[in-house]
Amino acid sequence: MHPLDQGTILQQAGADLFRGHTTEAYSNRMGYFGGYTAACLLRSVIYHPRRQDLPVALTVNYCAALASGAFDIRVREVRTGRSTQHWLAEMVQAGATVAIASVVCGARRPGWSHQPARPPAIVPWREVPVFEGMRFSGWFQRYDMHFVEGGPDFSPLPEGAHRAARSVLWLRDNPVRALDYVSLASMSDAFVIRGFIVRPKLVPAGTVTLTTYFHGDSDALVAQGDEPLLCVADAHAFSGGFGDQIAHMWGRDGRLLATSQQVVWYKE
Amino acid sequence: MHPLDQGTILQQAGADLFRGHTTEAYSNRMGYFGGYTAACLLRSVIYHPRRQDLPVALTVNYCAALASGAFDIRVREVRTGRSTQHWLAEMVQAGATVAIASVVCGARRPGWSHQPARPPAIVPWREVPVFEGMRFSGWFQRYDMHFVEGGPDFSPLPEGAHRAARSVLWLRDNPVRALDYVSLASMSDAFVIRGFIVRPKLVPAGTVTLTTYFHGDSDALVAQGDEPLLCVADAHAFSGGFGDQIAHMWGRDGRLLATSQQVVWYKE
Repeated sequence: MHPLDQGTILQQAGADLFRGHTTEAYSNRMGYFGGYTAACLLRSVIYHPRRQDLPVALTVNYCAALASGAFDIRVREVRTGRSTQHWLAEMVQAGATVAIASVVCGARRPGWSHQPARPPAIVPWREVPVFEGMRFSGWFQRYDMHFVEGGPDFSPLPEGAHRAARSVLWLRDNPVRALDYVSLASMSDAFVIRGFIVRPKLVPAGTVTLTTYFHGDSDALVAQGDEPLLCVADAHAFSGGFGDQIAHMWGRDGRLLATSQQVVWYKE
Repeated sequence: MHPLDQGTILQQAGADLFRGHTTEAYSNRMGYFGGYTAACLLRSVIYHPRRQDLPVALTVNYCAALASGAFDIRVREVRTGRSTQHWLAEMVQAGATVAIASVVCGARRPGWSHQPARPPAIVPWREVPVFEGMRFSGWFQRYDMHFVEGGPDFSPLPEGAHRAARSVLWLRDNPVRALDYVSLASMSDAFVIRGFIVRPKLVPAGTVTLTTYFHGDSDALVAQGDEPLLCVADAHAFSGGFGDQIAHMWGRDGRLLATSQQVVWYKE
């Protein structure tokens, strides 16, 4: 079983209650990878017997560090309409909320489609070396990143200078895994924190809120299989201890599979 | 009193309960302008006696059309940490959820700041005519839009052709109003639905979920006063009855004040 599937096993413990357990495979230095939390929360909604249709949007608010061990996820069906179904999923440890997510599922129907956005033209992933510079432990070993542009570089810069916030990379699960909504949610948080890209300084930092939109239906994800995603990550602004970042995640044939944005807290 | 302030008056009716009433000033054909709902929800958190610090992120999930009349907003302090405070605010009518929002407030601290994003270079707003093409009623009269690029154009296109999804415009409250978080939240939904920009077809459509990030502190908003915001709106993909759109909202001196993304449902 893939570590992501192993780590997101949830036991239904009530009509709207699921129980899970953290896995070291997605740990980081201060708890767990935010994408792992997102994956657990999205899976709880996907597992819910009343869930209709497929995820369109996921917002995860990270309230506190996830501790090693068991966690509960309380799921609430907020409202179900003809085209959309709204959910909340709340991860709880020792009676306190660790993270809370809203999930929108949507009834995708055939009809007009149009993709104004275009992927960057870059070389095939096999021609780009995998980045080996940050293979610390836990989740850092769960993704292969092939940077075409904007890889992490901690060499000093002149005072006041910044590197570009943009990275272009191929991204894939390690070990490889066929793409689904759960892994795509997790991968949408797998971009090196932009603050670490623009200035060569490692400071305490963490995702505060993450919103991911899924643009593809199941067929699009199945068609992707376990091939790497072409990804662009960028940032707009850092100020007062909070910065943003965005990501675009492209699949085969230039199909946009997901876009995301997040706020990252950082310490000066 | 400005219509936005009039329309977002909330009476505290319990420790975590606020009551409001819709205003025709922000009505649209199928209920109310989504930005108005966002403004009411954000205001409920801002009003809450336990609220600390200022908004950093707002996600609003639109569950059903808001009906004319009274509404309740139930506010919940989800978790308060040293740097962030997480809230839920739920708008309820007749016992059913109309919209639910998460709000993250953050303790902005002086320190490193950096803005990689740059505003487009365009002409001053006084040199761009205000758009008078969609002054229907309600909220359409609440904003002045000066399109520099990508204004609505419903003239026919050749079969299969699309217009660009991108608009660049100056945007301001009408009547004018000094900027604050509440009005910025509302304005972040004030962009013509991108589906209407790329194909000249008016179909039923509505925002499903909206996430807005606030990049400025109070000083940045106060400095903006009631001057128009320079805005860029764009879209990445439309498929299966759901499309996305994004917006960047710039203030004086090229300061990025807000970025947002949303999912819009549309009928073929």
